[in-house]
Amino acid sequence: MIKINENYLKLPGSYLFSTIAKKVKAYQETHPDADIIRLGIGDVTLPLAPAVIRALHEAVEEMGNAATFHGYAPDLGYSFLREEIAKKDYQDRGCQIDADEIFVSDGAKSDCGNIQELFDETAKIAVCDPVYPVYVDSNVMAGRTGEYDEATGKWSNVIYLPCTMENNFVPQLPKEKPDMIYLCNPNNPTGTTLNRDQLKVWVDYANENDAVILYDAAYEAYITDDDVPHSIYEIEGAKTCAIEFRSFSKIAGFTGVRLSFTVVPKALKSGDASLHDMWARRHGTKYNGAPYIQQKAGMAVYSEEGRKEILEQVAYYKRNARTIYQGLKDAGYAVAGGVNSPYVWLHTGEMTSWEFFDHLLEDANVVGTPGSGFGPSGENYFRLTGFGTYESTAEAVKRIQNLKR
Amino acid sequence: MIKINENYLKLPGSYLFSTIAKKVKAYQETHPDADIIRLGIGDVTLPLAPAVIRALHEAVEEMGNAATFHGYAPDLGYSFLREEIAKKDYQDRGCQIDADEIFVSDGAKSDCGNIQELFDETAKIAVCDPVYPVYVDSNVMAGRTGEYDEATGKWSNVIYLPCTMENNFVPQLPKEKPDMIYLCNPNNPTGTTLNRDQLKVWVDYANENDAVILYDAAYEAYITDDDVPHSIYEIEGAKTCAIEFRSFSKIAGFTGVRLSFTVVPKALKSGDASLHDMWARRHGTKYNGAPYIQQKAGMAVYSEEGRKEILEQVAYYKRNARTIYQGLKDAGYAVAGGVNSPYVWLHTGEMTSWEFFDHLLEDANVVGTPGSGFGPSGENYFRLTGFGTYESTAEAVKRIQNLKR
Repeated sequence: MIKINENYLKLPGSYLFSTIAKKVKAYQETHPDADIIRLGIGDVTLPLAPAVIRALHEAVEEMGNAATFHGYAPDLGYSFLREEIAKKDYQDRGCQIDADEIFVSDGAKSDCGNIQELFDETAKIAVCDPVYPVYVDSNVMAGRTGEYDEATGKWSNVIYLPCTMENNFVPQLPKEKPDMIYLCNPNNPTGTTLNRDQLKVWVDYANENDAVILYDAAYEAYITDDDVPHSIYEIEGAKTCAIEFRSFSKIAGFTGVRLSFTVVPKALKSGDASLHDMWARRHGTKYNGAPYIQQKAGMAVYSEEGRKEILEQVAYYKRNARTIYQGLKDAGYAVAGGVNSPYVWLHTGEMTSWEFFDHLLEDANVVGTPGSGFGPSGENYFRLTGFGTYESTAEAVKRIQNLKR
Repeated sequence: MIKINENYLKLPGSYLFSTIAKKVKAYQETHPDADIIRLGIGDVTLPLAPAVIRALHEAVEEMGNAATFHGYAPDLGYSFLREEIAKKDYQDRGCQIDADEIFVSDGAKSDCGNIQELFDETAKIAVCDPVYPVYVDSNVMAGRTGEYDEATGKWSNVIYLPCTMENNFVPQLPKEKPDMIYLCNPNNPTGTTLNRDQLKVWVDYANENDAVILYDAAYEAYITDDDVPHSIYEIEGAKTCAIEFRSFSKIAGFTGVRLSFTVVPKALKSGDASLHDMWARRHGTKYNGAPYIQQKAGMAVYSEEGRKEILEQVAYYKRNARTIYQGLKDAGYAVAGGVNSPYVWLHTGEMTSWEFFDHLLEDANVVGTPGSGFGPSGENYFRLTGFGTYESTAEAVKRIQNLKR
């Protein structure tokens, strides 16, 4: 027998969104006339902003001329982009992050999935529950999670931090000490946030307990409330305990363009070993840099014109999220999120998450995401996203309201 | 202390090409007038072909319109590209590879580096020596290689397959049984090849010994001789024992564009477990698909016009490689490669590889790659590449010839 990594075989079913896609496809095949509205996967629908399109065309043009052609990019990203990010996303906000602490890559999903490689195989993870499935799944593949229990939907060696209506979606410090703590803020899927004081509790805890916070800030652009930090480095002490993931996908509609970055501070150390240097080594060995074209498009996101255009797009999606939030609330649903996030998180009442998924698909032709797919405490919840068009979003809300009548 | 993956700390020095870049930079800073010719890293210099540029512009235009915008790509690649690859690279050559056995990604380096995750941590690797450093380094990070011995330049738990002038660069079957066998054909850095009969020996061996061949065919476009296979699937039995890596970097100058694919046949199984399904699961969990724009550019490579244009580029680089090969041979160097490969591999005589590197940099202002960076049997060898301009290549050859006078 070929000696495979048996941990892969422990993963139950397939990746959440693949399962949903298959279910929707099957429904559509048997109901070809159904006008299905997709508020499930967190994919954007607006086209790229004009400033981004112009930058892409210009970069393509450069690639067609010998004098301006670009071959291999620097593994860690072009200086022009790393400097722009360090300045505008960090230094302008008072965070002392340098350009060489920014690692440009092709997606926060890749980076969130790969980051666990830097840790020992015995390191123990803690995750908010519910949360983006990649954190747990990538650790299952690495053999850190123990065994899966079908009955509870839990892995024996994972510390779950329940985030439910009961605790107002604020994770409590665990009794057992974790080595890696995944925090997603604003959280996917609940759309809820930790404010500065609540995040400070975790930063202090991590520093005191030699744990590292893997901080996913992919939804940073949706933050509305002043007391929610845009970066974990706004919190004192974070540079010695936190790695931050950021994405161009949600702020600028780059889901199909692929560009992101990760911040690993030079101050993050394990004895003499620098996690910054380890991540650089990983990039140098298993990655060949983000494409030049994409990095130029990323620059356009920081230009005055680009910024204005993309913030209009974010405002458009925020309006959708508010429409869902308010519409569902009016219809009597218990809802969360929708303010600092494109996501609305609703309680499904008597139905399980997947029952509600089928109900919504079949009776309203609306696709959402079952909360249980994000962790055991997501059961009886459901996620809807503000990434559709305004018209389809409003129509979906109307259909869901009609179901209650 | 933070619980890090200590295996990372075992890696000696930094990645080969980073070290070279630093050395060249230091030389240039102290010799600002030196006209340095770089025939070191395997990066291309010709701009993208016109058909590719057109495809990129068209795809960018689509991304700017709501009706034709593309968000998240399918994790495994768009069907249009997977089908084109399956047909033109495989079925047209008589290889029965289906579109759903093609996994599109952002680079052969990423895939070659990540593929080891599918195997058990106790799996033993065999590598040609010398070879592309990513195979060994990615397994060092995963803890499969044992300890490094400075004196021999060898890892205690790696099976080395020496490929030198003495055995005409044909690796012999090992005494000890490996679980993973990395073969690069045409080989990087030696530029030498295995023909069909020689490759068949390895396919049969892998099938008989439950080993998997990780077959890197990134330089396939440079194959000139008829008896060198373009794909391992031309060899009977390969579908039950081989994974193939291909790249658009060297055939179409995509080093800065980033596009590649990996073939994992459905017939490749470990008991009931399918390595095809495992790789699909990895893509679904840790990758978010290659960008739409890039995949459209990949399609242009297969168009009639695109094919004609890129083959002219390959011919241009091949002419460079022949020029180096012949020029060095005429100057009395023992040389290999240069026929089925953009790489020429020369013996450095009395000098070590790094001594020759410094000699060439300082006395001829030519940058090449020290053979010892590719493995212990690469000591006393040196790699030059045909990816420069013809003019600079001819000039570099002249300078090297003059050193001998």
